[in-house]
Amino acid sequence: MSGTIRVMFEPEGKAAFVLPGSLALEAAARAGIIIDTPCGGRGTCGKCRVAVRDGCSPVNATERRILKPRDLAAGLRLACQARLLHDTTVTVPDASRFFEQRILTTGVHRATRLCPAVAKRAVRAPEPSLDAPRSDADRVLDALGGDGLRLDLGALRQLPAALRATDHHLTAVLHGGDVIALEPGDTAGRLFGVAFDIGTTTVVGSLLDLATGHEAAIAARTNPQVSYGDDVVARITYASEGDGLRELQAKIVECVNDILAELAAKAAVPAEAIYEMTMVGNTTMNHLLLALDPRHVAQIPFPAAVRGAVVVPAADLGIAIHPCGRLYTMPNIAGFVGGDTVGVILAADLPTRRKPTLAVDIGTNGEMVLGTRQRLVACSTAAGPAFEGARIRFGMRAADGAIEQVRFGDDVETSTIGDSAPRGLCGSALIDAVAELLRAGILDPSGRLRGPGELPRKLPRALRRRVVPGERGNDFILAHQAETSLGSPILLTQGDIRQVQLAKGAIRAGIEVLKKQFDVDDAGIDAILLAGGFGNFIRRRNALRIGLLPPVEHERIHFIGNAALVGAKMVLACTGYRAQADAASRETEYLELGGLPDFQHHFAEAMLFPESE
Amino acid sequence: MSGTIRVMFEPEGKAAFVLPGSLALEAAARAGIIIDTPCGGRGTCGKCRVAVRDGCSPVNATERRILKPRDLAAGLRLACQARLLHDTTVTVPDASRFFEQRILTTGVHRATRLCPAVAKRAVRAPEPSLDAPRSDADRVLDALGGDGLRLDLGALRQLPAALRATDHHLTAVLHGGDVIALEPGDTAGRLFGVAFDIGTTTVVGSLLDLATGHEAAIAARTNPQVSYGDDVVARITYASEGDGLRELQAKIVECVNDILAELAAKAAVPAEAIYEMTMVGNTTMNHLLLALDPRHVAQIPFPAAVRGAVVVPAADLGIAIHPCGRLYTMPNIAGFVGGDTVGVILAADLPTRRKPTLAVDIGTNGEMVLGTRQRLVACSTAAGPAFEGARIRFGMRAADGAIEQVRFGDDVETSTIGDSAPRGLCGSALIDAVAELLRAGILDPSGRLRGPGELPRKLPRALRRRVVPGERGNDFILAHQAETSLGSPILLTQGDIRQVQLAKGAIRAGIEVLKKQFDVDDAGIDAILLAGGFGNFIRRRNALRIGLLPPVEHERIHFIGNAALVGAKMVLACTGYRAQADAASRETEYLELGGLPDFQHHFAEAMLFPESE
Repeated sequence: MSGTIRVMFEPEGKAAFVLPGSLALEAAARAGIIIDTPCGGRGTCGKCRVAVRDGCSPVNATERRILKPRDLAAGLRLACQARLLHDTTVTVPDASRFFEQRILTTGVHRATRLCPAVAKRAVRAPEPSLDAPRSDADRVLDALGGDGLRLDLGALRQLPAALRATDHHLTAVLHGGDVIALEPGDTAGRLFGVAFDIGTTTVVGSLLDLATGHEAAIAARTNPQVSYGDDVVARITYASEGDGLRELQAKIVECVNDILAELAAKAAVPAEAIYEMTMVGNTTMNHLLLALDPRHVAQIPFPAAVRGAVVVPAADLGIAIHPCGRLYTMPNIAGFVGGDTVGVILAADLPTRRKPTLAVDIGTNGEMVLGTRQRLVACSTAAGPAFEGARIRFGMRAADGAIEQVRFGDDVETSTIGDSAPRGLCGSALIDAVAELLRAGILDPSGRLRGPGELPRKLPRALRRRVVPGERGNDFILAHQAETSLGSPILLTQGDIRQVQLAKGAIRAGIEVLKKQFDVDDAGIDAILLAGGFGNFIRRRNALRIGLLPPVEHERIHFIGNAALVGAKMVLACTGYRAQADAASRETEYLELGGLPDFQHHFAEAMLFPESE
Repeated sequence: MSGTIRVMFEPEGKAAFVLPGSLALEAAARAGIIIDTPCGGRGTCGKCRVAVRDGCSPVNATERRILKPRDLAAGLRLACQARLLHDTTVTVPDASRFFEQRILTTGVHRATRLCPAVAKRAVRAPEPSLDAPRSDADRVLDALGGDGLRLDLGALRQLPAALRATDHHLTAVLHGGDVIALEPGDTAGRLFGVAFDIGTTTVVGSLLDLATGHEAAIAARTNPQVSYGDDVVARITYASEGDGLRELQAKIVECVNDILAELAAKAAVPAEAIYEMTMVGNTTMNHLLLALDPRHVAQIPFPAAVRGAVVVPAADLGIAIHPCGRLYTMPNIAGFVGGDTVGVILAADLPTRRKPTLAVDIGTNGEMVLGTRQRLVACSTAAGPAFEGARIRFGMRAADGAIEQVRFGDDVETSTIGDSAPRGLCGSALIDAVAELLRAGILDPSGRLRGPGELPRKLPRALRRRVVPGERGNDFILAHQAETSLGSPILLTQGDIRQVQLAKGAIRAGIEVLKKQFDVDDAGIDAILLAGGFGNFIRRRNALRIGLLPPVEHERIHFIGNAALVGAKMVLACTGYRAQADAASRETEYLELGGLPDFQHHFAEAMLFPESE
C-alpha cells in the first residue's frame, strides 16, 4: 500500500511491511518474531536490544540511559523505542527473543537448557562371538549403559540392519526409558521436534532443531474443521453424530500432516528426522485430535474426557513424523480451558508471579488466567472467531492481502500484509478501525455507526465520504474499490461492529469476573499479558480505546505473542517443563462463567464502548 | 483298533484309547492331562491320586502303603501304579495336576496363587458437578486409588461411554500401571488370557480363565509356515528374502487367530474377553511372530535380535484378542535356545534343584538343559521334525488316526488316536516300533532292517511276514492294508529308521556333551525330565531301548508334558514368574555344539542303537 515501509529481519531473512513510525518491536511481531519486553516497553530493562542498520528515528534519551556508548556505536537500539521511518534491516539476537529467553532461564547451567523428552545417544556395540553370542538387543543396551532401558518393537525391527550397516556404530533415539528407534552411524547431532498450536480456526506448527534449540521453520493453515462449524460447540455437535468424530479427527490429522510436509520442505529436514510432536489446543481440539468423545464437554457440568497429558506413538493417530515418534498433548484444565491455556501459563511464567498478573489469550474463544504464585483462576468466554476474521463481512486471517493496521489522519491509512492490494482485514485492523471510528466520532459508545447526516462537523472530508448507508444501518468504507484486489470496496458494516462488541464484551466481562475473584481493581493488576495468534499485532492504545482491556497504563500491557505455541515449544525443548505443565493443569481453578449470577450483567456492560480514551 | 480300551477322564469329559494294561498316568497323558509325579512314578510321593471307577488292576502293595484305608474306600488310586484293564472313568483332582501344582506352589498364601499381569478392578466413579467439573479420567483414576496409574488411549476412547452406560459403575482392566480398557458395570469376575506354544511344526493355544486359573479350552494346529520349510533354518532363509518375513509373520498370526477363534467357540468366551496372550517358542518362531529379522540367527555366531521378553499391544501384530490386549513373549536364551526352553526351565523348576537335573524338550529341534540351582547349561540340536511325523514315510502329528502305541506280542498290537482305522503313525509309536524291532532282532544295532532271510529263527510267524523288501533296504509293515484307512499298508521303511537315528542321535549327543560340562556320569543325573508336545506319550522303557536317553533307571525319567506351554501358562497366570523367566533367560549358559571339537564324535556314536536293554 502507499506509504508502507519494508523492514527486513535477520538472521531469518523475513520481511514485514508497516506504516512509517512503527516501533521496531511492532514490526518484529509482524514478522512473527517476539521480542522479550519484561518492562512492558518502558525502556527500563534493556532486554529488547536489536541492531538497526539505518532508516530509524534518532537515539532518544531512554536509549542513551540504557545502552552503553559501545553498544550505540555498534548500532544497537531498543526495539521498544526505535521507530522505523524508511525501508531498513533489523537484526534480532537470540538473547532478545521471548522463546529463547524462556528456554535460557530453565536452569542455572547452560547444559540444562535443552533437555527434550527425545534424546539421541551414539554408541559402538560390541560384536557377538561364539563364546558370547549375545543378542543384538543385549549388546546395544549394554553399550547404552542402560539400566532399565528397553527397546521398543519398532527399534527391535530396525536393530539387526542398523547394527551391521556401519560396523556396529549406531545412534539410539531415547524417549524416557524406551529406545524408540535406531539409526546407523552417529547421528546424535541431528534431532528435530515439532510443536503445534491447534486452534479452532488456525493451526500453527513450529519445527525445532532440538540440537540447537532454534526454530528451523514455521507454517500455518486454517483448521479444515472450520467447514464443520466455526466454534467448538459446532464441532462437538458434529462429532457426536455418526462417524463425525472420525471425520473431524481425519481432517485435523490431514492438516497437521500438510503442515509437517511444509515444515520439512522449508527446513530441508525429512519428516522421519522428527521424533516428537507436542501439541497445545483447547480441550475440544485436544479431544478431536486424540479421537476422544468430546460430547460431554458441551453438557453441564462440561467435564473433559481427559485432563492430563497424553503420550502416544504419533503413528497411532496417523501423524506423519518418524514412524516410532511420540506425541505429547499438553494437559487441559477443564472442558473449556485447555492445554493452550496451560501453554500460556508456562510461557508467561504465571506460577512464579508475586503480584496479580492477567494473561489473556484471544483466539476463537477468549481464555484468561489471573493469579499469583499462590493461586491461579482461569475462565473461558465464547468470544467467537471475529478477531480471526470470521463472522466479519470482509474479515480474513492474518495472511497476504489482509489489512492489518489502520490509522486515521485526513483520510484512512492502512498497511497490508505482503504489501499487496488488500482483499480483507484481519483482527488487528478491526480493533484499529473501531478505535479510530470512536475517536473520530463516527461510531458512538453504544456501537452505532452514525449516518452521513449525524457526523461531527470537523471530520475531514475524505473520512466523511467513507460513511455510506448499508443494508442494516451504516457502513464505513475502509478501502475504496480502486484500491482493493476484489473489484469491490472493503467495508466495515454495522453487523461487523456488533460482532466486535460481542467478542470484546465477552473477554472484558471474563476479566472483570476474575478481578472480583481476587478482589483487585485495575490498579491491582501488575501486568496484562496479551497472547494469541494475533495478540502481538494489537495496538495497545486501540485495545484500550475499544474497552477490550481494562483502563491501565499501556506500559502494563505486554505482548507475549502466540504464548500457547511457546508453551508447546517449551515442553518440546525441555522435558522439565512437563511437570510444571501438569501442576498448572491440576492446580489452576476453573471458573464456569455460566454458573455465575452476575455474569450477564458484566457482559451487557462490557459490550459498550468507553466514552473516551 | 482291536483290543484298545476307552478311558474317560473327568471333569474334562475327554476320552483316550489305550492298550489294556496301560497305567492311568499314561492314559491321562494321552488325554492331554499331565499328572504330577515328583517321585518319577516310583509310588513313593503319593501326589498322583486319581479316582478310578472300576476296570482297574487290584490295589497293589505300594498303593496300600501310601493311601489311607479311607482313601482306598473312596476309590482313590495312584496313577503311577493303577493299570487300566477295561473301559473305565478316571477323575483327576486339581491337586494331582502338574500345572495346578506349579501354580499352587507360587506362594504361601492361597491368595497369591493367581496374579496375572492383567487384572480387573470394579469401581464407582463420582459424578462431575459445576463446583468440581473434573475430567472423566481424573474421577476414574481417583476411584481406582491409582497413584501413578495412567489411562491408555484405547481406554480413554471407551471412557465417556463406559462411564455413563451404567451410572458411573465400571470395571478397569489394568496392565502394570496402565489402564488398558474399560468395561461398563462390574465385570471383575470375568477375565481370560491365552497361552501359546508356537512350535516349528505345531502351534498350541490354551485359554485360561484368569479368575479361577482353570483351562477353559485347548486347541492345536499345524504351523502353516511348514509349507515354507520344515525346520527353522529353512524359515530363516525364506524370511531373509524379499517380503518373506512379512509373509511368514502373516501366516503365523493367521494360525494364532484361527486357534483363538476355536478356543473362543469351545469355551463360549468372546475373543474380546481375552486381555493377554503369552507366547513361548524357539527364538526363530519368536522373531517371526514379532516380525524381527531372524537372518543372523543362522549366521555364526548365531546371535538373536532380542533375548528379553517383549511386551506389546497384541493388535500391533494383528492378533485378535481384545483390541487393547497385550502380548508377552517369553525371553529367549540364545539364537537356538528360545523362550520355549525358558518355559521348560520354569515348569520343571530347574533353578531350585540341588542335584543335576536334565530337562529334554523334544520338538522339531531338541533343546536340553542340565543343571542345578548353581548353574544351568543349555544346548540345541537340529533333531529335525521326525518325532513330529515329518520326514517319516507314514509319519503324522499326534491327531485322530495316528497310531500312537505299538507293542509286539505274537503279532503287532497298536492303539490309534480317536480309536479309528489308522492313517499313519506319530512320534511315540515310532519310538515304540523301533524299540520292539530291536528287541525282536528285526533291526540290528547299526540301524539296518534285516531282510526276510536274516531274521531270528524264533520270531513269531505273523511278525516275520511283516518284513518285506523295500525301495532302499527292507520295510516293516506296521499295519496291513485291510486295517488302515489309506487303501495301502502303513510301512516303516529303512529310510524312516535312518531319520530316527539322526533325531535321537542328535539329542543323545547333546545330552552327553552337557554331562561333560558338569563332569557327571549317568548315575550323577538326579532326574531326566521329558518335555515336548509328544514327550508325555513316550514309553520310557522304549526311549531307553533305542538310546534316546542315557541308561538310567526308568523311575528317574519323569514326564512333564508340554512344559514349554506350562511355562507360558505360568507367566500368564502369575506375573511373578516373569522375573524368574528373565533370570533364567539371562543366567542359563548356552553351549554352541557346532563350536565343540568332539561333538561329531558324540553324534556318530549316538546314532547307533544300544546292543541290549
